[in-house]
Amino acid sequence: MPPLVYLDHNATTPIAPSVLEAMRPWLYERFGNPASDHPFGRAARTALDQARAAVAALIGATPDEILFTASATESNNLALLGAAQALKARGRHLITSAVEHPSVVQPLAHLAASGWEVSRLPVDGHGRVDPADLARALRPDTVLVSIMHANNEVGTLQPITELAAPARSQGALFHVDAAQSVGKIPVDVNALGVDLLTLAGHKFQAPKGIGALYRRAGTPLTPILHGAGQEGGLRPGTENLAYAVGLGAAARLAAERLPALSERLRSQRDRLHAQLAAAIPGLGLNGHPEARLPNTLSLAFPRVTGRELLAHTPNLAASIGSACHAGETTISGVLAAMGVEPAQALGTVRLSLGAETTEAELDTVAAALIAAWRGLTAN
Amino acid sequence: MPPLVYLDHNATTPIAPSVLEAMRPWLYERFGNPASDHPFGRAARTALDQARAAVAALIGATPDEILFTASATESNNLALLGAAQALKARGRHLITSAVEHPSVVQPLAHLAASGWEVSRLPVDGHGRVDPADLARALRPDTVLVSIMHANNEVGTLQPITELAAPARSQGALFHVDAAQSVGKIPVDVNALGVDLLTLAGHKFQAPKGIGALYRRAGTPLTPILHGAGQEGGLRPGTENLAYAVGLGAAARLAAERLPALSERLRSQRDRLHAQLAAAIPGLGLNGHPEARLPNTLSLAFPRVTGRELLAHTPNLAASIGSACHAGETTISGVLAAMGVEPAQALGTVRLSLGAETTEAELDTVAAALIAAWRGLTAN
Repeated sequence: MPPLVYLDHNATTPIAPSVLEAMRPWLYERFGNPASDHPFGRAARTALDQARAAVAALIGATPDEILFTASATESNNLALLGAAQALKARGRHLITSAVEHPSVVQPLAHLAASGWEVSRLPVDGHGRVDPADLARALRPDTVLVSIMHANNEVGTLQPITELAAPARSQGALFHVDAAQSVGKIPVDVNALGVDLLTLAGHKFQAPKGIGALYRRAGTPLTPILHGAGQEGGLRPGTENLAYAVGLGAAARLAAERLPALSERLRSQRDRLHAQLAAAIPGLGLNGHPEARLPNTLSLAFPRVTGRELLAHTPNLAASIGSACHAGETTISGVLAAMGVEPAQALGTVRLSLGAETTEAELDTVAAALIAAWRGLTAN
Repeated sequence: MPPLVYLDHNATTPIAPSVLEAMRPWLYERFGNPASDHPFGRAARTALDQARAAVAALIGATPDEILFTASATESNNLALLGAAQALKARGRHLITSAVEHPSVVQPLAHLAASGWEVSRLPVDGHGRVDPADLARALRPDTVLVSIMHANNEVGTLQPITELAAPARSQGALFHVDAAQSVGKIPVDVNALGVDLLTLAGHKFQAPKGIGALYRRAGTPLTPILHGAGQEGGLRPGTENLAYAVGLGAAARLAAERLPALSERLRSQRDRLHAQLAAAIPGLGLNGHPEARLPNTLSLAFPRVTGRELLAHTPNLAASIGSACHAGETTISGVLAAMGVEPAQALGTVRLSLGAETTEAELDTVAAALIAAWRGLTAN
């Protein structure tokens, strides 16, 4: 790869060396199918159990509450389609927010096309849902509320505890897409008070291709894939053993590093922000100033577009929207929902730091962004 | 692992060293998200394209006809549920066989519970479907026929070309679950004449956790997962780049080795079979004597159960049913559908060879099985 500074960790992260090391035997000599009734299979089952326990421990769950999937997208689909299917006799009303990821938006659109009613709660200028709005939207036939923990584009954290409690007290399940928060900040399913939680391995140094769904014991859920009996009958298919082991190792690593890692990221990020703000008058910040992922800095550069700014900082790998929308120049739906002006949205660059990011890298990036912005706005 | 001879390659295979080597950079330094619009992302997209082309080349398809999935189970679900959904206005009749894998049986059962009619064609004593039975079952409202290429338990090959032609000439789509055949014998989607084909990476030395669905250009298919636009909008979720690269490398390796590999497996297997048959009077063979996977030997040992025989050959890792049913002592549904007598089914052991199996290993296994059988049947 070219000598780039990678500040796109909300899109994906490198696998941690210790995670790769943990996976290595399961990619080669320990290759058994966990379903096989011989030593190769039994070794695989044991490793799968241990990985499940590590993921559970990271989020305060019990191992039998963790289902391995191939992605946060699959976890979100299973949570939403599976819970809706399981609860359709009780009601067909769902509630979500205006700033969700496409892997929540699209399954809900699919349900809406199948006769479900979906209420979409607005967000304020910082991207937060107001619990009072949720309280007003809850109905006797509301069976599920799905609101993300941290936004991928601006990092804003939702007040999940304050949202989940009234929803659950009225009999609705609460699902949280925590793909962006797990591994970056402490996440505990009981502190949050949720029934279903999605996490994504590749957002915290496990590989791309593994996710998990936390399902509180007893939560009704119908499988969306059908086959043999893996994952308690809820997610069939031969298990991705090596990646499950990797997810377990990443969970152990995150548990060891948190909350110190959060603090370091926050400090590095705020220092970068201060450097840029000092040199660029009118630099805007998208997202909540405090209640925000510690690694995420969504900045609105005045009088330039994010695209041209990044084109002039070739040593920086960053994003101008969420990775899933890349290639399009339409304004981010998240920023639009927050009421961000089009000019500010077009000038937005998302810088997202990772566990291996160094201050030297950030100094390089600050200098490059400032020089590029000055070059583009001089005259 | 203990010093075992692994003859359970129909359950799963080890990753080939060259496949692991091809994957390695994508597990570490080349970690970009293919959706990202920077050099990390562009490198990932190029690798994904190359992997797709290699998988396509192995089966005579074009790259845009290959969708990556997390497993053959997911591919089968997408093919069956996705085609049924796309074609429901044209008809609601489906046809399958009596010897399919649970990942075909269960999606079809789900459709049957949702108002579809599913006809299940019988098989003969060798496990083959009679094309005349299919011709009789086809109706004007038949929209999809799904019949496996090679059976996982006995290895019997279905006459796919003879089955697909009449189905397609009557307007039905033809799906083949080729999870067990791809990589073991030459498979060409045009020679078979199919619309949809499922393959599984871990059955031919790619990792567990990657599969593909071949979808002939223009074939109607509705996604079963909903999210961002990956895989042409048909399979959302951040791509498992390292495993896709691994599947591509496994496809290239298979293309290089076939058909010579098939011949070597057949010769090794038949030599093992001859050694055992010479020593064990009344040894039975399940499956077609000729039209069968070259690596598969499903043997019925007289006067013992497969379970006790394997318990007395601790240096052998093999299976007594399909891996997905392991742990149960019920007689295999595949063998029952073939009309195999219960005693013969209970005495069945499946030995499935792999690319790295040696004649010395097979000699060891033959001696161990003969000794164990003699010990169990003496007196």
